[in-house]
Amino acid sequence: MSATDPAKLTADLIRCPSVTPEDGGALPLLERLLSGAGFTCTRVDRGGIANLYARWGDKGHARSFGFNGHTDVVPVGDAAAWTHDPFGAEEQGGILYGRGATDMKSGVAAFAAAAVDFVRDTPPDGAVILAITGDEEGDATDGTTALLDWMADQGEQMSVCLVGEPTCPENMGDMIKIGRRGSMTAWITVTGKQGHSAYPHRAKNPLPAMARLMDRLASHELDQGTDHFDPSTLAVVTIDTGNPANNVIPAACTGAVNIRFNDTHSGASLSDWLRAEGDRVAEEFGVTVEMKIKISGESFLTPPGELSDLVSRAVAAETGITPELSTTGGTSDARFVKDHCPVVEFGLVGKTMHQVDENVPVEQIHQLKSIYSRILRDYFA
Amino acid sequence: MSATDPAKLTADLIRCPSVTPEDGGALPLLERLLSGAGFTCTRVDRGGIANLYARWGDKGHARSFGFNGHTDVVPVGDAAAWTHDPFGAEEQGGILYGRGATDMKSGVAAFAAAAVDFVRDTPPDGAVILAITGDEEGDATDGTTALLDWMADQGEQMSVCLVGEPTCPENMGDMIKIGRRGSMTAWITVTGKQGHSAYPHRAKNPLPAMARLMDRLASHELDQGTDHFDPSTLAVVTIDTGNPANNVIPAACTGAVNIRFNDTHSGASLSDWLRAEGDRVAEEFGVTVEMKIKISGESFLTPPGELSDLVSRAVAAETGITPELSTTGGTSDARFVKDHCPVVEFGLVGKTMHQVDENVPVEQIHQLKSIYSRILRDYFA
Ligand SMILES: [Zn+2]
Ligand SMILES: [Zn+2]
Repeated sequence: MSATDPAKLTADLIRCPSVTPEDGGALPLLERLLSGAGFTCTRVDRGGIANLYARWGDKGHARSFGFNGHTDVVPVGDAAAWTHDPFGAEEQGGILYGRGATDMKSGVAAFAAAAVDFVRDTPPDGAVILAITGDEEGDATDGTTALLDWMADQGEQMSVCLVGEPTCPENMGDMIKIGRRGSMTAWITVTGKQGHSAYPHRAKNPLPAMARLMDRLASHELDQGTDHFDPSTLAVVTIDTGNPANNVIPAACTGAVNIRFNDTHSGASLSDWLRAEGDRVAEEFGVTVEMKIKISGESFLTPPGELSDLVSRAVAAETGITPELSTTGGTSDARFVKDHCPVVEFGLVGKTMHQVDENVPVEQIHQLKSIYSRILRDYFA
Repeated sequence: MSATDPAKLTADLIRCPSVTPEDGGALPLLERLLSGAGFTCTRVDRGGIANLYARWGDKGHARSFGFNGHTDVVPVGDAAAWTHDPFGAEEQGGILYGRGATDMKSGVAAFAAAAVDFVRDTPPDGAVILAITGDEEGDATDGTTALLDWMADQGEQMSVCLVGEPTCPENMGDMIKIGRRGSMTAWITVTGKQGHSAYPHRAKNPLPAMARLMDRLASHELDQGTDHFDPSTLAVVTIDTGNPANNVIPAACTGAVNIRFNDTHSGASLSDWLRAEGDRVAEEFGVTVEMKIKISGESFLTPPGELSDLVSRAVAAETGITPELSTTGGTSDARFVKDHCPVVEFGLVGKTMHQVDENVPVEQIHQLKSIYSRILRDYFA
C-alpha cells in the first residue's frame, strides 16, 4: 500500500472548522483513518468536548509509544485580514494556509500518518497509542485530562509520550521541549460608580484604576530566568468596558492577564502578588477590585535523558540539525501527561501559530512525518 | 385680549412627538401662534431638521432681544417605567408630565408666550427675535448653527440673546449660566501585532500602551480652575478589546476620553496635548496610536455685566432669589450663539430632564413666563 499523505490529511483537518469547543468533524475523520488501519478507537468525550483514544497493539504490552495532540484551533481573529480562507486549506507556492496549519493539525496529521504506515509496514512488538483531544486551546479541563483519567480507569498506559505541538522557533528541527513554564490567568473586575462625564467628582471612574493596575502588572519584571527556563512573562490580554456613550462614566470594567512562569514562582505566589497589586489600586482610587484566578498548570521539567536522546537522534538524522532542549513557550498538554509518563514535545516551526494567515510549508509536514516515523522505528528497534 | 397661557402651550408642545430629528408638529404650532401675533416667521430647515426664525419689529432695529431654545427632545428611554404617557401631557396635582416638560418645551412656551403678550401690550421700539431649533439634543449640526448661518446671510441680528434651557439646580431662580466649559471627545485606537500570550516578544501588545496612555491622561491635572470656571476634567469613558482568548495577545484596542475644559484651554490646544501623549506611548511601546477627535464646543464666557445684571434683576424681582452666575454643567446651544452676540442662559429647575416621568410644576411655567416678560420690559424700557 502507498504511504499515507500527511499533507492531504492536514488539509482535510483544516477544512473541519474546529474552533474550541467545536469538533467540526475532525475527530471522526481521524477515527475513520485509524480504525481502518487496525487501531482500536474509543471516543472519550467529556463536558461537550470530543476526544479520541486510539491504540494499535495489545493493552498489556510493556512497551508502548504514545503521541498526544489536539485538533481544536483558536478563533480566526480579524477575518478581513486573512488573504486565504481560514478553513479553506488553500495551497499556494508549496504553502498550505489555514487556521491550525501549524497549531497543530499538521502535527496530528504527521503522527497519525506515521503511526498508520509504521504499524502496517513494520508491526512492532508493543503498542502505539494516539491520544487526541478537541480541548487544548480552551479551558483544557475536558481534553487530555479526560483522556488520562479514562486511561487510568481502563488500565491503559503509555511508556513514554511525545506531544506533537510546534516547537521549532526558526528551522525545522531546532528545538525539543523538555519542560514548560506554568500558566495562569487572572480575570479582573474593577467597580466604581456610574456618572455623567461632566461631573466626574460625583462618579467613581473604574477605568483609570484599571489602566494603572494593568500598566503596573505589565511593567513589572517577574524574574530574569533560571538554568532551564526563560524569564517569566505577563501579557495583558483584554480590557473591556462596553460603554458607547461619551457623556457617561461607566460603573465597571473588566480585564484579564495571562502569566507564563518558570520555577522561580508558583501559581500561589503569583496569585498573592496579583491580589496585592489589586488591593493597592483599590486603595489608591477608592474602587473595588475583584480577581478570579485560574492556574492552568505549574511549571515542570522532564530532565534530559533516554526519551529526549531518542527524539534528538531522529531529528538530527532527518534534518541534520541537533535540536536544543528547551523549556520555552506556552503551556501544552504535556503539563498533564508528565504526571502519567516521561514526556517531551517536538513539532514543526510555530511562527504563524494563532496569527492571521497561519500557514505551513507542505514539505515540512512530510519531514515531520519522517521524523515521527524514525522515532517509532528506533523506539521499537 | 387675554394673556397667552404658557402651560397650555407647553402641553400642546409635549403632545408633538418631536424626538430628534422628528419635529412632530411642534414648530408649525409655534409658527401659527407667532404669525398670528404679528411675527414674521421663516422656516430655516437644513439637513432634514426643522428650525423656526421669528421676528417682531423691523430687521434694521439697533436694539433687538433674542430668545433661543429647542423643541426636540431625547428619546423616551424605558417606556415601561413611565407612569404617564410621555407624549400625553397629563397633569396631576399641579404637575405636568411628559418628555420635554423641563428640557425644554416649557422654556420655549414661556418665552413665546411672554414675547406674544409683550409686543401686543407694550410694542417696543426694537425687535424681538425667537430662534427655535429642532436639533439640539442630536448632533446639533443643522440646528441653531443653521439659524445663525441663515441670519448672517440675511443680515438678521440679535443684540443680546437669552437661551431658555433649564439652569436652576434646586429652586426656581437660583442659577444663571454665563458661560459653559467646552467639551470634546477623543476616540483612540492603539494597534500592535497579534500573537500568542506565551511569546509576548514576538507580538506587540497594544494594551500596556493603552493602559499607560489612559493612566497618564487621567492622572494629568489640566488646571486648577479659573475665576469663573471649575477645573477642567478628563473622563476615560471606555476601553475595549473584545478578546475572549486568554492565550491570544490582541492586535488592537480602542478607548475614548471626554474632556470638559475651561478657558485655560482650547479644543486645539487639548488636541495637540492628546496627540503628543499618543505619540509618546507609540514611541515607548512601538505601537501605532490613532486618534479621532471631535470638539463639540469650545469653552466660552459672557463676563458678568449688563446682560447678566438684567436677567438677575428680573429673576430676583419675580422669585425673591438672587441667582448665582455659573459656568457649570454640560453644553448647550449658547456655545454657538456666543459667536453672534452676548448670551446668557436662564430657565427652570432641570432635575427631571432626560429622565423617566420628566415633569414640571405648572406654577413654575407661569413664573418663568413672568421672568421672561419682565426681562423684555426692562430691556426695552
Ligand atoms: Zn497547540
Ligand atoms: Zn435642552
